[in-house]
Amino acid sequence: MSIISFTCDYNEGAHPLILEALAKTNMQQEPGYGFDSFSFSAKDRIRKVIGCPQADIFFLVGGTQTNSTVIDAMLPGYAGVVAAQTGHIAVHESGAVEFSGHKVLTLPQHQGKICPQELEAYLAAFHSDPTWPHMVWPGMVYISFPTEYGTIYSKEELTKIHTTCQKYDIPLFIDGARLGYGLMSPACDLTIQELAKLCDAFYFGGTKVGALCGEAVVFPSGNAPAHFFTTVKQHGALLAKGRLLGVQFDVLFTDNLYFDISRNAIDKAMQVKAIFAGKGIPFHIDSPTNQQFPILTKAQMDALEGKVLFEVWEPLPDGRFVTRFATSWCTTQEQVDALKEIINQ
Amino acid sequence: MSIISFTCDYNEGAHPLILEALAKTNMQQEPGYGFDSFSFSAKDRIRKVIGCPQADIFFLVGGTQTNSTVIDAMLPGYAGVVAAQTGHIAVHESGAVEFSGHKVLTLPQHQGKICPQELEAYLAAFHSDPTWPHMVWPGMVYISFPTEYGTIYSKEELTKIHTTCQKYDIPLFIDGARLGYGLMSPACDLTIQELAKLCDAFYFGGTKVGALCGEAVVFPSGNAPAHFFTTVKQHGALLAKGRLLGVQFDVLFTDNLYFDISRNAIDKAMQVKAIFAGKGIPFHIDSPTNQQFPILTKAQMDALEGKVLFEVWEPLPDGRFVTRFATSWCTTQEQVDALKEIINQ
Amino acid sequence: MSIISFTCDYNEGAHPLILEALAKTNMQQEPGYGFDSFSFSAKDRIRKVIGCPQADIFFLVGGTQTNSTVIDAMLPGYAGVVAAQTGHIAVHESGAVEFSGHKVLTLPQHQGKICPQELEAYLAAFHSDPTWPHMVWPGMVYISFPTEYGTIYSKEELTKIHTTCQKYDIPLFIDGARLGYGLMSPACDLTIQELAKLCDAFYFGGTKVGALCGEAVVFPSGNAPAHFFTTVKQHGALLAKGRLLGVQFDVLFTDNLYFDISRNAIDKAMQVKAIFAGKGIPFHIDSPTNQQFPILTKAQMDALEGKVLFEVWEPLPDGRFVTRFATSWCTTQEQVDALKEIINQ
Amino acid sequence: MSIISFTCDYNEGAHPLILEALAKTNMQQEPGYGFDSFSFSAKDRIRKVIGCPQADIFFLVGGTQTNSTVIDAMLPGYAGVVAAQTGHIAVHESGAVEFSGHKVLTLPQHQGKICPQELEAYLAAFHSDPTWPHMVWPGMVYISFPTEYGTIYSKEELTKIHTTCQKYDIPLFIDGARLGYGLMSPACDLTIQELAKLCDAFYFGGTKVGALCGEAVVFPSGNAPAHFFTTVKQHGALLAKGRLLGVQFDVLFTDNLYFDISRNAIDKAMQVKAIFAGKGIPFHIDSPTNQQFPILTKAQMDALEGKVLFEVWEPLPDGRFVTRFATSWCTTQEQVDALKEIINQ
Repeated sequence: MSIISFTCDYNEGAHPLILEALAKTNMQQEPGYGFDSFSFSAKDRIRKVIGCPQADIFFLVGGTQTNSTVIDAMLPGYAGVVAAQTGHIAVHESGAVEFSGHKVLTLPQHQGKICPQELEAYLAAFHSDPTWPHMVWPGMVYISFPTEYGTIYSKEELTKIHTTCQKYDIPLFIDGARLGYGLMSPACDLTIQELAKLCDAFYFGGTKVGALCGEAVVFPSGNAPAHFFTTVKQHGALLAKGRLLGVQFDVLFTDNLYFDISRNAIDKAMQVKAIFAGKGIPFHIDSPTNQQFPILTKAQMDALEGKVLFEVWEPLPDGRFVTRFATSWCTTQEQVDALKEIINQ
Repeated sequence: MSIISFTCDYNEGAHPLILEALAKTNMQQEPGYGFDSFSFSAKDRIRKVIGCPQADIFFLVGGTQTNSTVIDAMLPGYAGVVAAQTGHIAVHESGAVEFSGHKVLTLPQHQGKICPQELEAYLAAFHSDPTWPHMVWPGMVYISFPTEYGTIYSKEELTKIHTTCQKYDIPLFIDGARLGYGLMSPACDLTIQELAKLCDAFYFGGTKVGALCGEAVVFPSGNAPAHFFTTVKQHGALLAKGRLLGVQFDVLFTDNLYFDISRNAIDKAMQVKAIFAGKGIPFHIDSPTNQQFPILTKAQMDALEGKVLFEVWEPLPDGRFVTRFATSWCTTQEQVDALKEIINQ
Repeated sequence: MSIISFTCDYNEGAHPLILEALAKTNMQQEPGYGFDSFSFSAKDRIRKVIGCPQADIFFLVGGTQTNSTVIDAMLPGYAGVVAAQTGHIAVHESGAVEFSGHKVLTLPQHQGKICPQELEAYLAAFHSDPTWPHMVWPGMVYISFPTEYGTIYSKEELTKIHTTCQKYDIPLFIDGARLGYGLMSPACDLTIQELAKLCDAFYFGGTKVGALCGEAVVFPSGNAPAHFFTTVKQHGALLAKGRLLGVQFDVLFTDNLYFDISRNAIDKAMQVKAIFAGKGIPFHIDSPTNQQFPILTKAQMDALEGKVLFEVWEPLPDGRFVTRFATSWCTTQEQVDALKEIINQ
Repeated sequence: MSIISFTCDYNEGAHPLILEALAKTNMQQEPGYGFDSFSFSAKDRIRKVIGCPQADIFFLVGGTQTNSTVIDAMLPGYAGVVAAQTGHIAVHESGAVEFSGHKVLTLPQHQGKICPQELEAYLAAFHSDPTWPHMVWPGMVYISFPTEYGTIYSKEELTKIHTTCQKYDIPLFIDGARLGYGLMSPACDLTIQELAKLCDAFYFGGTKVGALCGEAVVFPSGNAPAHFFTTVKQHGALLAKGRLLGVQFDVLFTDNLYFDISRNAIDKAMQVKAIFAGKGIPFHIDSPTNQQFPILTKAQMDALEGKVLFEVWEPLPDGRFVTRFATSWCTTQEQVDALKEIINQ
């Protein structure tokens, strides 16, 4: 048996229906830069799914690119973006936000999430500090859903954060690189229609949810920043053959595919969780989504070597390691069963 | 008969062999970010083709992105990039180079090309101007091959430009978004191995030459800028599923495919050229590559309406229009024959 | 006799009344960052002089700094600034505008000025070019008054440029590094009150008109960009001891000093002009302000060596040189007389 | 009696000897941009004082400007700067470092200082983290001396930090906005000659130590970044009348003035400290320099109202306030005595 990988949710290519559609439409001559018929169709499908008929929708290629482009477009030059200290933009994007001139203003993280009360307190403190004109003005809030730790915000939490943003008149942006995995979690009490109303911009991640690449950025009320197309190109984020993104999202939002394959990842993740729990292995975080973080000893890790791949997240002071096992849209029952057999050996 | 399009060279999807390879490798689990086996294989093939075994190679997604990332990585902060005033980076990239903090320093264009003597004169004048520390230092030279007007540099011209760059100790970067179409032109007296030795960085455009997306950046002597991977990510140009690029370039550089399909575009373009010439229609520029620029009257343009698509490049003072007809890797004999019939009606 | 210098208009320190005021107020304890009483007083005086009681006024330190800060603050991220190809921001600011991410979009210069008709034509062409979203959006217009060649716009020209800016809904910014010298020119048909109404931002240059340093930026209708104070600090342009600027501008705008000393420069420049003209020496440009550009032969230049300093502006194809002789707020009759004697030898 | 201010160390103008020198040299014609004879003289004096005959020295105008210019010039594009979370660049510079594209990477602060061991641990962890290419590379270390909390590094601490920087081959930059006040502290065990050898760049703050404005940047071993002059201009930090800075630093480094007036601030600060201590008032931090941070109750603060000005630094959870009383180069015995009387009422 070959090694199975739970390293991440972008180990494979794309959903077969996507490849099929790419092949079928391949020689159809279409305009570039997102003006192809597939992109128009995909946008219409997404508008219906989220219940926002006026939504502005743009297809970008990857997550870091999407974050830095949207943030730069929504922020005035003097402003920064508020994020959890573990937020992707704060840690693992090589300073892409700073590259566009903006500071990432960090709040403490709680299982990867910011706390609505702490956000409110931070903004209140900022605006009552007489030295604020010498500091970076908090001009928007960024959260990821699910977070980098697999956790999700409840409807109550998201509502509070959104209300705070409205109070201070700054937009809320949701990084949805794994949005499907959050929405399909049994722990999620939010619908996509509700989420779309509780923020000013969000995106459906395609790269990690069945596509070869692509993120669908949504400005729910038609509130795309002026000249956003130009900003996208300025950031090197405009795809000449926009059809590549159009075809993919058109397939993903046909017949509920995006959500169905997201649910597969969750079903498999819950099995993975049960496998570790069944062996008495503790977790770093109680994740309700497709990323699971079991804490393994060196010996346990050694026992898995050559059989299963996973990520070592961080070492613990006691010598054990937080690891990450990620399922995805295409994780099979066979792979989970194989993991079970390996773990239970 | 449906409308045929000669609008641009990215109207269709990808070469069928690419789609085939994507489908075949789809479920193979591979690492992300360019560490997949396909990317390694593709890089090896490219190194062999260009005769540069130590070349550093990176796969990026699109042309504007590649230009701004490479230029920013190769330039010191205080420096700018020299380009023809019609260079893509100077006109049609929404200021992506300036976004990264660098000025585009323009030279006059001659059928889309910079003149080696004018480059030399400009650099000499700059360095002898006592106010130069108050100006933007010309830190690299950018040329496109072929140019935005379909023209190509001769070996002599490229050698002179390269020599000048070496004299001033600044790198020469070749935008090869349509590199195959330049190399396969009957007017080209350069091999790819020679071109690789006459510059410090160049790229094989994939987007316009048979791929869904992707540009293969080459630093021929292993001279990639330090931490280029991080710079790529910082620019939002790192693809998570790097396999998408790896598979495509692996196919393109197998069995000479990249060059064979490039030659198809040239063959068809020469036929297109002959069709217009046969009707006594003049050209704005004598292009030896896949873009042809016939000058049409309003009446001639009207006659084509609803039958064939093309780009209107620019109006002329006398009321006529420079138009662009582009062929590509997949232009068929049927399309060219149809054009012929339309033109000759 | 020691060498006299007509090299530039910032060869000396400050007007004696400024030094006096600095000494007199020296130990008065005042808040920093422009909240000192001198700055408030100076702003009030300027508001009165320009007839704009609601004007927002900020004191910055130098010209390049002021240009790049104001331009960055007034431009959206995707936009560039239109300027003459000889504009200071386009040539001699080391790319400070590009450093803040914006392209300088150049128009042809006519004796240092842009042509209102060409501006209108450029903007019209831009907006009618279907590829404009791929280009840098012209988001404001920059002119210098007087220009780098000492010329000034007439009321008619400025009105036309302003009208065009309003038509396209973009601001007009006037670099007034030498504003006094323009306004006091006998050729000027504009008052400062009129100029203030014909633009969206301008500044009174202090550095070249009697101050040690300092430029007074005016947003005539109280239209300072939001959070401009923070942007100024972000650009490193906020002076801790803002009193240094406040005291200086308070003196300069007391009892018409700014304009009186500007007139001195003009009076002396007209004499300098007459000295050269009297010897049959031609001029590169017919400048009505404090910078004069006589064309000298090598022999004529040699004859001046060791006696008078001036700038060599540019060589001419025929072997002669455009030179620049600048007078200033403090040029004395003795200096002009000495020059006359030298020239007439 | 008028209100006395201990708000900050830039409440007054300049040392009288500076004003005298400005007046005396005022009409001397000198080249601009730092090529005046005063600047050359000042640089020579500084080189002697610090014992670094090859030092490269540049005069900039203000602190934030100096920090962002030096940091941008010394960092590669992909790198960030490590600083204490309370470092001036991390908090009170409106994001000037991020404006130039670089992230400020923060370490915990200990009375305003970074801990050498934590720096070493951070760098070691970064380089052993396999995901480091996705993160911002720590490319230099920034410390302030004294810190924003008035504390200073010991020779041992500075040596350790410097050694760590050398180990990782990254420069150490010391923000010396208040350098004199640190060096003249009785708690300081470093000479300026030693400090200059233990870093790669530092500056003598003038703005807060007797000048109207100005910071003298020193690259001790002649290690100024290439084209630093151009970078200074690009950042809007080049003063046209460089003589203003040259004259001031020439005076400050004549006859030990910089250090003598720094000592005055320390003497007075120690008296201020004793005044509060004598009343049993506790301190937030045991500061050995010119900034003292007594903790006052609301009642105590109210009692000072209308008599003495100071800064409220931050509220404490128990309702008291950390306040800041700053002395300076020109604090008089009369002012300190007046404070004593007020406090002891």
